[in-house]
Amino acid sequence: MEINYSNIKVIGFDADDTLWVNETYFREAEEEVGRLLSHYETPNKIDQELFKMEMKNLSTYGYGVKGFVLSMIELAIELSNGRVSNEIITKILDIGKTMINKPIELLDGVEDVLKSLSKDYKLIVATKGDLLDQERKLEKSGLLDYFHHIEVLSEKQEANYDKLLNHLDIKPSEFLMIGNSLKSDILPLINIGAEAIHVPFHTTWEHEKVGKTETEGLEYKTVESLKDILSILR
Amino acid sequence: MEINYSNIKVIGFDADDTLWVNETYFREAEEEVGRLLSHYETPNKIDQELFKMEMKNLSTYGYGVKGFVLSMIELAIELSNGRVSNEIITKILDIGKTMINKPIELLDGVEDVLKSLSKDYKLIVATKGDLLDQERKLEKSGLLDYFHHIEVLSEKQEANYDKLLNHLDIKPSEFLMIGNSLKSDILPLINIGAEAIHVPFHTTWEHEKVGKTETEGLEYKTVESLKDILSILR
Repeated sequence: MEINYSNIKVIGFDADDTLWVNETYFREAEEEVGRLLSHYETPNKIDQELFKMEMKNLSTYGYGVKGFVLSMIELAIELSNGRVSNEIITKILDIGKTMINKPIELLDGVEDVLKSLSKDYKLIVATKGDLLDQERKLEKSGLLDYFHHIEVLSEKQEANYDKLLNHLDIKPSEFLMIGNSLKSDILPLINIGAEAIHVPFHTTWEHEKVGKTETEGLEYKTVESLKDILSILR
Repeated sequence: MEINYSNIKVIGFDADDTLWVNETYFREAEEEVGRLLSHYETPNKIDQELFKMEMKNLSTYGYGVKGFVLSMIELAIELSNGRVSNEIITKILDIGKTMINKPIELLDGVEDVLKSLSKDYKLIVATKGDLLDQERKLEKSGLLDYFHHIEVLSEKQEANYDKLLNHLDIKPSEFLMIGNSLKSDILPLINIGAEAIHVPFHTTWEHEKVGKTETEGLEYKTVESLKDILSILR
């Protein structure tokens, strides 16, 4: 498949699981809450119910650790029929604080890629989640200077990307998005006529998964590691 | 005091308590949590301890309803020595959901002012808090079309406003900020050479209060109602 990237002026990077590890910490938190509530349910059931709770609350809480913690507390009360101890709720609060304050673990080759691309392109971070969390992560990551600014989108849907391009004052064909989520970082971009490159992460949140038919015939590249981007853009 | 507003190109509006009622709902929530925990402490003590808890958690949770709810839960557990019921924690979760999903109550004259100013200036919303919350409020408010876009700042300090102006590609003297908080919407702007107009709201969160000496001699106007802005800018 030949895709022409010569028009690209701005490159948007997803942050979580594209620049640094994130989903792994949610998986660990889910395992931890499974252990904390093992008195009431099997780990598998807790996992399923937590996902349902998150989906029920998504339109109210949005993405990010704080909403995740509030959903875990609500689930603990529900699964225990209102009998979960204050000690366990405190442990759930602590899981959240630990997640928010985790050190940043950059993915392989990130810094080299950004250093190289920042010479020829305007780079931005385009992420959903909590602005404070994402700004703090970017500062801790040491990557701040490579980026022009952060765009936090409340959702990563076509309309939100349209607004972003409008805001950047560029045409869709001048924008390349790079990220690990087909649903959030790739499909909406292809649908509005922008470019996108998929860099899968080893684990994907259930909510971000898409069916095979949704990506069939769409023009985007998939690379194994962010480092492979450089040879594609040269 | 004569201030020249003829250079202004972009006007930034704070959102909560400038365009619509917000702080009032936090006050109501604090009263409600005071009643819920009245078994353990006096309302006054609960109020003070909640503020301390919010300040302790501010660098982790940032601003917005979700962090406020997490702090209320942590306080309930602490004040009750780990004995607060699941029923009360569920009620605290519900306070948060109700706050997030409250209908928007526009302040007096907001729509007329925006309609008029949007003819001559680029208007933006400059707010701190949670992007999802703020976008949703703006959509529900019916005011979306008057604004070019929303800027969510993680903090409203000089450095954040510098970044904003950089992002807008304008000089400080071309930016006017309008808001209810001296600390967040006025002082940092004056300090970086931008303009600011203060529109006080009847209640101010303790964290947003500033001492009298901090504002002495600074060049900004205070108006009683947003409607008064129109005659100042004409």
